[in-house]
Amino acid sequence: MDHEKKAVVLSSGGIDSTTVMFIAMQKKFAVYSLSFNYGQRHLCELKAAEKIAKSIDVKKHLVLDIDLRKIGGSALTDSISMPEAKENSGIKSNNIPATYVPARNTIFLSFALAWAEVIESSNIFIGVTAIDYSGYPDCRPEYIESFERMANLATKAGVEGKTKIKINTPLIRMTKAQIIKKGLTLGVNYSLTHSCYNPDVSGLACGRCESCFYRKKGFQEAGVVDPTKYA
Amino acid sequence: MDHEKKAVVLSSGGIDSTTVMFIAMQKKFAVYSLSFNYGQRHLCELKAAEKIAKSIDVKKHLVLDIDLRKIGGSALTDSISMPEAKENSGIKSNNIPATYVPARNTIFLSFALAWAEVIESSNIFIGVTAIDYSGYPDCRPEYIESFERMANLATKAGVEGKTKIKINTPLIRMTKAQIIKKGLTLGVNYSLTHSCYNPDVSGLACGRCESCFYRKKGFQEAGVVDPTKYA
Repeated sequence: MDHEKKAVVLSSGGIDSTTVMFIAMQKKFAVYSLSFNYGQRHLCELKAAEKIAKSIDVKKHLVLDIDLRKIGGSALTDSISMPEAKENSGIKSNNIPATYVPARNTIFLSFALAWAEVIESSNIFIGVTAIDYSGYPDCRPEYIESFERMANLATKAGVEGKTKIKINTPLIRMTKAQIIKKGLTLGVNYSLTHSCYNPDVSGLACGRCESCFYRKKGFQEAGVVDPTKYA
Repeated sequence: MDHEKKAVVLSSGGIDSTTVMFIAMQKKFAVYSLSFNYGQRHLCELKAAEKIAKSIDVKKHLVLDIDLRKIGGSALTDSISMPEAKENSGIKSNNIPATYVPARNTIFLSFALAWAEVIESSNIFIGVTAIDYSGYPDCRPEYIESFERMANLATKAGVEGKTKIKINTPLIRMTKAQIIKKGLTLGVNYSLTHSCYNPDVSGLACGRCESCFYRKKGFQEAGVVDPTKYA
């Protein structure tokens, strides 16, 4: 049995998950970063996740292939046209955007749970935020709490009553600007991160999708220079 | 909007999931069967699942590739040696067997949830049973109830308060013998099903693993001729 404190951190190569990874490292966790090749249009995020994992001392970086295109239902994986950001997009307008990928966080957290069980980690970190976000149902605190309860019934740990699985969401109540400021104090190099849902062939951000919208807004509100190259 | 009653049915090609599929059809659901190529040693189960889907009128049969070998931790996917069945295997002896695949049902149900959301189905069927089983934590009723609560917070349906997702487990309180008897009344052809975790190269069942153990016991207790070819 390895007594090192381990954490599985979901990494999309974006601002949020990268900040979360630094928070986990600051808390002295050995980080096991996990990314998914799920048929997303914006494969640049996988390259970003890999660069970030290499740039810091993660224990292991794992990329899993899961073809969500076979299931469909999202502008991120299908040939549905990519919506541009609107100030009122998302949950506040009772309108979940086309970029929502059905059950994505549930699928991602399920794999994280499997890996955590195998490496004997009881901590999973995910960079969800319920503030500057697109209104996806699987980013809300009540969803995360519910996943955690389920996770503790799903696993050996739950049956044997040993360690409890904890789903850590350190950003859930933070604005994008607060996240960026926090990350900078921890040494995050945001120029390595990628947010755009619809980059051009050379990987440059479109500057118009929801994800670019929240990224730009975050840097602006934080009073920090945005290192992103826009097309 | 399609008003046909649809159900996603997890199909492993075994006795339980095949019986569940027939139960769903009897309840007049249009069946969308879902199987996983997860790096299991016993790929015969995928062929069985496909044959079963073809033999009845399923709407669609989907096989998703998810490489759980990259995560490891189970005799079903790794080169861990396959345990033989013991009368006291499983949860009753506080001993989860080596064939347990970490978080497998959580992963499978998460994909089923995604598909259900896309096809606008609010019913998922899974053939878990908490009677003649191997003691996997993710087969217990309290786990399933917890997954269902989580699923309703994870999805559009949950946010919009439209349809509720229901995880149907019609076999959960049934013995293997009861399942087989039920299936026969519904017309299941069990010779198409495959249970063995460790078949030989020609696909013949080993007759010694946990899964063969429960299968044999089921046919015997049901007083039904076992159509399985053992090596």
